[in-house]
Amino acid sequence: MSDYRPPVSDLAFILEHIVGYDEISQFPGFEHADLDTVTGLLSEAGDFAAEVIAPTNRAGDTHGAVRNPDATVTTSPGFKEAYAKLVEAGWASLPFPEEFDGGGFPAVVGLAIQEMLLGANMAFSLAPLLTQGAIDALLHYGSAEQKALYLPHMVSGEWSGTMNLTEPQAGSDVGALVTKAVPRDDGTFGITGQKIFITYGEHDMAEQIVHLVLARTPGAPEGTAGISCFIVPKFLLNEDESLGERNGVKVLSIEHKMGIHGSPTCVMEYDDATGYLIGDLNKGMRIMFVMMNSARLSVGNQGVALSERAYQQSLAYAQERHQGAAVVPGGIVPDAPIIDHPDVRRMLMTQKSFITALRSLMLYNAGETDRSVHHPDPDVRARATEVVALLTPICKSMGTDLGNELTSLALQIHGGMGFIEETGAAQHYRDVRIAAIYEGTNGIQAADLIGRKLGVRGGASVIEFLAQLRELDGELAGAGEEFASIRSNFIEQLDKLQQTTNWMLRTGAGDPAAALSGSSPYLRQFGLVVLAWLLAKGALAAAPLDPSVAETRLVLARFFAEQQLPAASGFAAAATAGATDLFALDAGQFADLVSR
Amino acid sequence: MSDYRPPVSDLAFILEHIVGYDEISQFPGFEHADLDTVTGLLSEAGDFAAEVIAPTNRAGDTHGAVRNPDATVTTSPGFKEAYAKLVEAGWASLPFPEEFDGGGFPAVVGLAIQEMLLGANMAFSLAPLLTQGAIDALLHYGSAEQKALYLPHMVSGEWSGTMNLTEPQAGSDVGALVTKAVPRDDGTFGITGQKIFITYGEHDMAEQIVHLVLARTPGAPEGTAGISCFIVPKFLLNEDESLGERNGVKVLSIEHKMGIHGSPTCVMEYDDATGYLIGDLNKGMRIMFVMMNSARLSVGNQGVALSERAYQQSLAYAQERHQGAAVVPGGIVPDAPIIDHPDVRRMLMTQKSFITALRSLMLYNAGETDRSVHHPDPDVRARATEVVALLTPICKSMGTDLGNELTSLALQIHGGMGFIEETGAAQHYRDVRIAAIYEGTNGIQAADLIGRKLGVRGGASVIEFLAQLRELDGELAGAGEEFASIRSNFIEQLDKLQQTTNWMLRTGAGDPAAALSGSSPYLRQFGLVVLAWLLAKGALAAAPLDPSVAETRLVLARFFAEQQLPAASGFAAAATAGATDLFALDAGQFADLVSR
Repeated sequence: MSDYRPPVSDLAFILEHIVGYDEISQFPGFEHADLDTVTGLLSEAGDFAAEVIAPTNRAGDTHGAVRNPDATVTTSPGFKEAYAKLVEAGWASLPFPEEFDGGGFPAVVGLAIQEMLLGANMAFSLAPLLTQGAIDALLHYGSAEQKALYLPHMVSGEWSGTMNLTEPQAGSDVGALVTKAVPRDDGTFGITGQKIFITYGEHDMAEQIVHLVLARTPGAPEGTAGISCFIVPKFLLNEDESLGERNGVKVLSIEHKMGIHGSPTCVMEYDDATGYLIGDLNKGMRIMFVMMNSARLSVGNQGVALSERAYQQSLAYAQERHQGAAVVPGGIVPDAPIIDHPDVRRMLMTQKSFITALRSLMLYNAGETDRSVHHPDPDVRARATEVVALLTPICKSMGTDLGNELTSLALQIHGGMGFIEETGAAQHYRDVRIAAIYEGTNGIQAADLIGRKLGVRGGASVIEFLAQLRELDGELAGAGEEFASIRSNFIEQLDKLQQTTNWMLRTGAGDPAAALSGSSPYLRQFGLVVLAWLLAKGALAAAPLDPSVAETRLVLARFFAEQQLPAASGFAAAATAGATDLFALDAGQFADLVSR
Repeated sequence: MSDYRPPVSDLAFILEHIVGYDEISQFPGFEHADLDTVTGLLSEAGDFAAEVIAPTNRAGDTHGAVRNPDATVTTSPGFKEAYAKLVEAGWASLPFPEEFDGGGFPAVVGLAIQEMLLGANMAFSLAPLLTQGAIDALLHYGSAEQKALYLPHMVSGEWSGTMNLTEPQAGSDVGALVTKAVPRDDGTFGITGQKIFITYGEHDMAEQIVHLVLARTPGAPEGTAGISCFIVPKFLLNEDESLGERNGVKVLSIEHKMGIHGSPTCVMEYDDATGYLIGDLNKGMRIMFVMMNSARLSVGNQGVALSERAYQQSLAYAQERHQGAAVVPGGIVPDAPIIDHPDVRRMLMTQKSFITALRSLMLYNAGETDRSVHHPDPDVRARATEVVALLTPICKSMGTDLGNELTSLALQIHGGMGFIEETGAAQHYRDVRIAAIYEGTNGIQAADLIGRKLGVRGGASVIEFLAQLRELDGELAGAGEEFASIRSNFIEQLDKLQQTTNWMLRTGAGDPAAALSGSSPYLRQFGLVVLAWLLAKGALAAAPLDPSVAETRLVLARFFAEQQLPAASGFAAAATAGATDLFALDAGQFADLVSR
C-alpha cells in the first residue's frame, strides 16, 4: 500500500463548491471537462501519484541526483521509470491546449493534479513543473514555428524545460545578470555565461531539455530593460526535426542541498551555445513573468502538497503510537494513542484546517486564472486578472510559510522519531524549506503585494476584493447559530484588515519604506482572513450535504475562525508600525550586543 | 578568524542588570565570583568557544559520529582534541562545588558559558551538558562514597555522563519502561534491557562513561512508582579506583538524524551490566527530575545559542550581499546591501530582539536557581524555587520554538544560498530542530505548566509572578515618553495574560481537558509577555549608560513591545477555547478529506 493517499475528495469538493467549477466547465473549449469527468480524472491521477510516484520519494532523498564525470546526471533510483510512465499516462499534459496535443483542461484541474504529484514526490515533480513554466512562456510569446517545433514534445513530457534566470551576482536582482547573447549572421545567437540554481538543468529522464535562458545582447540597456529570452535546446535539431548534435551547454556541478535531493539543482555553463530569441529583443522580463506567475502558484502548491503528505503521516503515527494515559473531555483514557492528548489534537487540527484552507486558496486562484482567460465577458476576465495578480503573492507566501510550519508540526507529533531520517517526517520538513525562497523569496512576494498589487486602479482593486469577502456576511448571518462565531470572528478580522489596508494605501505612495516595512506582517494578516473566508465558504456549502462532511467542514471553519484567525490582528501593529524602529540601529548596533 | 563571536557583552549586561548578579555573588561561597571576575571569565570562555570549539562545527555535521564494527564510536574530526582542551581549561567544571574540584561558581555563570559552548558547536557540547545532568543527580542523591568515587572525574570532564530513560515503548511515558535491575548478593544489580536515544552513549572523547540508567527491580510497582536509578559505568572500577574490565553495556547502533550529526545518539544494550543503586529503591523518578530540570533549561539555552550563531551569520551575509536598489526611509539606495531592505531589517530585528530576550529569560531563571539554593533567607529560597518551577517549561518551549523560527529567518536571509549545505545556515536550522522534542516535548512542557505549575499554592504562585511583572509599570511610567509605548503595550498584554491565567485557574481543576487543550497557546502568550518584561527591564537599566547601548536596548524593547508582543493576545482565544472543537472529529473525519 502506498503511504500517500491523494486528497481527491477534498480537491473535488473545493472545485465544486469554492472554485465554482461548473461555470468554468461551460467556457468554450472545456465542454469535455465537466465536473464528473474531472473528478474521475483526479481519482485516476491520484492513483497514479500514489502508486507510481510516491514510492520513489525516499530514494530521491537518500540517493540524490548525481553528476557523472562526463557531465551527465543520473537521477535517483526509480525516477527515470516513473517519468516514462508519467509521459505515457499524460497527466502532465492535461492543462495544455489540444492544438499541441495537450488535454485542453482548465488550469485549475492541472493545479489539482499537480498537488498530488508534488505530494507524492516534490523533487521528482519539479521536472514537469518547470517544463510547464517553459510551455507557458512559449505559448504566450513563442513564434508559430517555435510553438510547432517545441510544444508538442514538451506538452507530452518527452522533452523537459528549464528556467535560467539566476547568476551568482543576480538573484533577486535579475537585472544584474551578465550572460551574453551575441547575434550571428543566421539569426541565431551565441549564448555565453554561467547560470546557477537551475532545476533539472541536466538529467536522464527526458531525451531533450529545452532551456529558456535570460541574457543580454551587446549594447542592450542596463538592468531589466536589456534582458532578452532565448531558447537553448540541449540538442540542436536537425532539418527533419530529429535530435542532432549537442549544443554548447553543460552542467558544471550540482548543489548539495538541505532537501529535494532528488532534484538536480545545476550550475550550467553556456559556451557560445546556439540560442533562438523568443518574442522581442529586450522584452525578456515579460516572458519571465509569465513563467514566474505560473511558477509562483505552483510553489505555493508545494507547501500544500508536502503539508498534506506530512499530515497524513503524523495522523497515522498519532493513531498508532500509545504513550500512557490521556486526559480527554469527561475522563481519562488509559494506554491511549497519542491522538487522544489534547495538544496532539491541536497540532492535527491546525494542520488539517490550514491545509484545506490553503488548498482552497490555490485552487481558487487557479480558477480565477481560467476565468481571466476563458470567461466570455471581458469585464469578468479583467477582474479575474486582477484577483489573480492580487492573490498570487499571498498564495506563494502563505503556502510556503505554512508549509514550513505545518510540516514542523507533523514532525513534532512523531517525538524523537521525527528527528530520525528513516521515519520520513524530516524529509518533508527539509524538502519544503526551499519553497519560501525560490521563485521570489517570500519577502519579495510581500513587496510585490504592497508595491505592485495594492496600487492597482488606485487601490480600488483590493478594496473590491475585500468587499467581495464581506459578501459572505449575509450568508453566514442566514446560516444559523452554528455559524455565529465564525461570522463574528471573520467580520472582526476583516474590519481590521480593512483598516490595515487603508493605512497601506494611504502610506504607500508617500512613504514607500514605511509600507514595505510592514509588508510581511500585512501579507500574513491578509492571508489569514482569506483562508478563514474560504473555510467558511466551504462550511456553508457543505451544510446541506452528508452530515459527516458538513460537520467536518463546520468544525474546521469554526476552529480556524475561533482559534487561528485571531492571530491576524496581532500582525496589524507590525504591519502599520512604519520604518523607524527597523532603521534605528546602525550596522554596529546590530552587531553590538555580540561584540566586546 | 572564527565565524562565531561569543555574546559576552550581552551576557554580562544581563547578568548585571536583569539577573541582579551582584546579589548572587554575595551569597556564601561565591565570594570569589564577583561580577568583574565573572565578566573576565566569560570573555576567556568566549575566546575558547570561538577559537577551539567553533571550528569543529562543520566537520561535526559533514562527518558525523560513526559506530565501528567493534562497537566503539569514533567522533567527528577535531572533537576528541577539542574535548581534551575543554577538560584541560576546566570550563565545564566551573559551576560545580569546589569540594569535587569544581569552580564553585553560580549556576547562572555556568549557563552563560554553556550558551557559548552550544553556540560554538551544539553537537559537541551535548557531551558536557549531559555530564552536567548526571553530576546534578549524583550531587543530590548519590551516597558520600558514590560522590567521592565519581564526581571529581565527572566534574573535570575526564569522565562523561549519560541519561538513560527512553525505551522504544517508553518515550514521553517513562513509566512504561521495562529494563530490569536484578539484585545480586553483593549489593549491586544486574541491569538488562535496551535504551534508545542515548546522547553520547558511546564515544572516544572521555576515558570513562558513567551511565545513569532507569530500571525496575523484580516486583516493583507498575508505572513511575516502580522505577529506580542506577549508576552503570562503562568500565568497572578496580579496588584502587583505576578503570577495570568492561561492564556489560555496549552501543548497538547510532541514529541517522536530521541534525546534530556530531552527537552520537545511541541505542544501548545492557546485558546483566553491573549497576549501583542511587538513592532509594523505586525513587528513580525524583532523580530523573533533577537531571531533567537542569537539562530543560539547558535545552532552552540551545535554542538561544543556535539562534545567536545563525543570527550572526545572517547579519554578516545581509551586510555583504548586494542585490539591486533598496527603498529606505527618505529615499533609495542604489546597489544596496540587502540589510537596507526593510523586510530584511525586520528579519534581523526579529532575531535580535528575541535572542536577547530569550537569553535574559534563561539567565533570569538560572539566577533564580542560584537564589533557590544559596539565598540566606529561606522565604526567598522557597519563592525562587517556585519561580524556577514556573519558568522552566516556558524557558524550554520558548527557547526551542523560537530557536526553530529564528534559525529559519537566518536561513531565509541567505536566499537560495541558505538551502545549500556549504553555507552552513541550514545546519543551524537542522541542528536546533531536536530541541523542541527532547527532554520532554514542548507539548509536555505546556502540559507541565498547566498541570503542575499553575496549581502551586492554589494558583497564588503564578498570580504573585504576574504581580511581580506588573511592578515594572511604575518604573516605565517614570521613565518618560520614550517608554510610553512599551508601557502601554506591556500592560495591555499583561492584563490579557492575567485574564487567560484566571480562566486557566478556574477551568483547570474541574475540566482538565479544556485547560490542556489551551496549554500550548497559553504558554506562548505567557512567554511573550515575560520576554517583553525582560526587554523592558533591560532598556530601563541601560537608559543611564552609554548612549549607543541605551538606544539599542530601547529600540529592541520598543520594537518587541510594539510589533511582536501584540501577537500574545492572538493566542488568548485558542488558550481559552476549551476542548470541544479539538475533540469534535473522530478518527475517520480526521482522515475524511483525504480519503475517497
